[in-house]
Amino acid sequence: MSYWQKKAAAKREANLAKIPKGWLLPAEFLKADQTSNESVLDVPAKCGILSPEELLVTQNFDAVSLAKVVQVGSLKSEDVAVAFCKRAAIAQQLTNCLTETFFDDARKRGKWLDEYLAKHGKPVGPLHGLPISIKDPFNYTGVQSTLGLISYLDHPPAKENSALVDTLLDLGAILYCKTNIPQTMMTADSDNNTFGRTLNPHRLSLGAGGSSGGEGALVAMRGSVIGVGTDIGGSVRIPALVNGTYGFKPTPNRIPYGGQAFVSRRGSPGFPACAGPLTNSFEDMEFFVRSIVDTKPWDRDATAIAYPWRSETANIKPSKLRVGYFQGDSKFPIHPPVHRAIESAANVLAAAGHEVIPLEQTPPLDIALGLSTDYWSLDNTRTSMQHIKNGGEPLIPSLVKQGPTLTKKEDGYSMDDLFEINVDAGEYKASWNSLWAQNKLDVILCPGAETTAVPHDTFGIPPYTLVWNLLQYPGIIIPVGKADKAIDKDSLASNDWKRKYSSEDIHGAPMAIQLVARSFQDEELIAAARVIDQCLKIAENTGSSR
Amino acid sequence: MSYWQKKAAAKREANLAKIPKGWLLPAEFLKADQTSNESVLDVPAKCGILSPEELLVTQNFDAVSLAKVVQVGSLKSEDVAVAFCKRAAIAQQLTNCLTETFFDDARKRGKWLDEYLAKHGKPVGPLHGLPISIKDPFNYTGVQSTLGLISYLDHPPAKENSALVDTLLDLGAILYCKTNIPQTMMTADSDNNTFGRTLNPHRLSLGAGGSSGGEGALVAMRGSVIGVGTDIGGSVRIPALVNGTYGFKPTPNRIPYGGQAFVSRRGSPGFPACAGPLTNSFEDMEFFVRSIVDTKPWDRDATAIAYPWRSETANIKPSKLRVGYFQGDSKFPIHPPVHRAIESAANVLAAAGHEVIPLEQTPPLDIALGLSTDYWSLDNTRTSMQHIKNGGEPLIPSLVKQGPTLTKKEDGYSMDDLFEINVDAGEYKASWNSLWAQNKLDVILCPGAETTAVPHDTFGIPPYTLVWNLLQYPGIIIPVGKADKAIDKDSLASNDWKRKYSSEDIHGAPMAIQLVARSFQDEELIAAARVIDQCLKIAENTGSSR
Repeated sequence: MSYWQKKAAAKREANLAKIPKGWLLPAEFLKADQTSNESVLDVPAKCGILSPEELLVTQNFDAVSLAKVVQVGSLKSEDVAVAFCKRAAIAQQLTNCLTETFFDDARKRGKWLDEYLAKHGKPVGPLHGLPISIKDPFNYTGVQSTLGLISYLDHPPAKENSALVDTLLDLGAILYCKTNIPQTMMTADSDNNTFGRTLNPHRLSLGAGGSSGGEGALVAMRGSVIGVGTDIGGSVRIPALVNGTYGFKPTPNRIPYGGQAFVSRRGSPGFPACAGPLTNSFEDMEFFVRSIVDTKPWDRDATAIAYPWRSETANIKPSKLRVGYFQGDSKFPIHPPVHRAIESAANVLAAAGHEVIPLEQTPPLDIALGLSTDYWSLDNTRTSMQHIKNGGEPLIPSLVKQGPTLTKKEDGYSMDDLFEINVDAGEYKASWNSLWAQNKLDVILCPGAETTAVPHDTFGIPPYTLVWNLLQYPGIIIPVGKADKAIDKDSLASNDWKRKYSSEDIHGAPMAIQLVARSFQDEELIAAARVIDQCLKIAENTGSSR
Repeated sequence: MSYWQKKAAAKREANLAKIPKGWLLPAEFLKADQTSNESVLDVPAKCGILSPEELLVTQNFDAVSLAKVVQVGSLKSEDVAVAFCKRAAIAQQLTNCLTETFFDDARKRGKWLDEYLAKHGKPVGPLHGLPISIKDPFNYTGVQSTLGLISYLDHPPAKENSALVDTLLDLGAILYCKTNIPQTMMTADSDNNTFGRTLNPHRLSLGAGGSSGGEGALVAMRGSVIGVGTDIGGSVRIPALVNGTYGFKPTPNRIPYGGQAFVSRRGSPGFPACAGPLTNSFEDMEFFVRSIVDTKPWDRDATAIAYPWRSETANIKPSKLRVGYFQGDSKFPIHPPVHRAIESAANVLAAAGHEVIPLEQTPPLDIALGLSTDYWSLDNTRTSMQHIKNGGEPLIPSLVKQGPTLTKKEDGYSMDDLFEINVDAGEYKASWNSLWAQNKLDVILCPGAETTAVPHDTFGIPPYTLVWNLLQYPGIIIPVGKADKAIDKDSLASNDWKRKYSSEDIHGAPMAIQLVARSFQDEELIAAARVIDQCLKIAENTGSSR
């Protein structure tokens, strides 16, 4: 065992030791590994670790409804905290979704919240009693932020909370764990040499997405009621779509982003990353973002923009939406179940009386891909790679396969290059804006990726999400059923496709659609997406969605 | 006469020829030049070119009230157009504030607006019948945008309007002239080798500010009811403060910025410039910005951010403001009349019951100065300087004096430099944000510059305005009286000051205060500034302002 392997093993061992003995799964549930085609979604219900009450609490509420029952005193925050800690511990053993746990803090916090409610007769804030999980880079005082890097294993525990963590605590949330990410956070396989790989709970042989892959798996396992991810190319939306959860990447900096640990170099002149929620219900996304923006996070964190949440707009129910719709870009053909999800949603919306407008001439995604990867590669000193080298660890397989995303130009970027990239990006942005305005769109319906969840280390670079980061458009993932080899047949694929399609490999993987609006139109997006989500649910329940 | 001098002379001659003979001032009014200490503000009233009705129309209305009388049909748009064309022509002969005129278009436009109103019984839009002047870089179809550069004199007339020009026309405005700017637009003396120097109408020996100096002089002369400038370091606010007008630099991109002519290189990774109004009344600023934002300019121009105007917030009348107040930064000592303006405003506000909070430890302005000039200098190819060289023309004196603002680092900037600059700027921004939040400020009251208007070519780099561009904070200039050598005595100045102070030189120059709020808080700024403007007016009228 090499030096770095020993360090990683010690960290994992210490982590495992923090899980109470009674929460450890019997061996029979731990047989499957990353080559297994099994789902582990039902293990929490059948493993016997959770009491019937704990199962009820974790399984049957979304954040909005759980907040209500806790805040009227029907459920104790402490009990809720323990239930979710247990379930997160189970999820961790099955999918390897966590990096850090602080279950004792959570129980104490729950107790304190209960006392507060009893004493004051009112909750601390709208998130009072809600267990919320956070992606590893968010700093939580007293806990390390290693980002899975060997060279960060010697970093001391965080001395301060990230701005968002402080805000969540002010709002009454219970924090109890941090979640797994890929090495560098710049690939969609949440795998690193310290914590290992996160697996997809729907089918362990599939990737859990990234970079907020731990959140995706944990939320799908209902080990968290709201998971907080970050997204600069799809890192909230990819884990959402591959794990069958909702996911919302708002316009950058509506959610405070400050005070996180980082692996890439600070001060990049590229486009910004942003934080956003993964949830099991539509309303939880709005609830989360509204609760945060209503605290005026710009008073805490200079990264947060002073744009109040326009609740009125977010609650409009448009009776007739203009939905721009595109099935994909010919250079990035989408797989049959993705096609089915989009096509089916478009049909449902049209049948419900909305105007569905096929967008024939969308600006090419390869331009977005080129520009985004340029922006991500501007650091000529390759800081991320230095941090990896410093730990003596190898690159993870998906980074090796993905190629040099972060070091695109071998001889580095000049200021001239950047001026040119900015000009091109401005033109690209203008072309999308014109398309939007000409068609008077309310929302765009499009794929969230070329594929559903795919076997480990094959997800690759995600043009269907990164384009909206480049444009700084908000995007929402809505889950819509599952891939089915009997429907999404191999024969529907073309041999010309660069991405291999095997209906057998992805059978049972969640399907999803992506909805986007223009920058700062988060509230308009929520309003339109809510209507669409409801249409799809009705269609699903009446069996008319195919 | 050199080749470039001949070209410039030909352009000026052609411009002069466009002014109708009857609008040319008698020689007696044209004796004063840039060495004169005379004011020319009273010339329009006494030169005999304007009829009494035209004097009334141009002199006694602000935009809000003029719009009303035109839109109910009490005044004809055509007559208003002609009155302002005449007055602008007079202002041009006295202060050299214009670059282009299209008076015929304006008259035709006025006529069309009158017909529209008669036919439809309602105005085209809220700016129906308002003559609005635009800074030279705004493109107006059929008219050149030379930016005063010799090498641009061969450019064909604009083939398309700037986004903002289209919006103004949609709103019913009358366009009739473009206004003068400095060579490169990166100095506060609006002087260039094509059109020459704009003079300050309050005292011709003083500068008219820049880079929207033509707007400042024209609006002060009441040759325009609203002037549109642009601002990346003070270019709206400096002309406002030196010419005694109001000026509003909103948060970047609330006003559409697209489709302008440019001299600097496109695609700069520095902070953005923004457009904003110069006016003769407080309400005109809000009226202008609201009217534009209400059109949803983001549908026309991808540069415009989709942030609706929050009229309700802008119309709140806070009874008790928390006004952060700083007199200046010790490295950039302010001149006696500037001190008097700020001190007096602070006293008036305190007496009116507002909380005036002295900000003792403001983040140093020299950091803002360093960062801003770095951002302005990132173009290693020095595009602006190339355009000057291409015309064979010399640098204007103020650029020579100011030194190499645009070429700060002799050996150019690397990507590494930019990452570091961005990190420093992020920290600087955070320090201002903390100061703001800790003091729970509604608004900051501070100098708009170290000086009032000063003799030509001595204004220099403006730390008190550029800091807010760097931070992307909106800022408003409010005029407050005039410098007076009997009060603002030489003895009040220190010999250590780098900027020479002479009470004699600046006697009669307008004084002003600057009010700022944080990014995106334009409406909060308007609300607070309105209350402050009213307090100051009451104090002025009751003589309690000193």
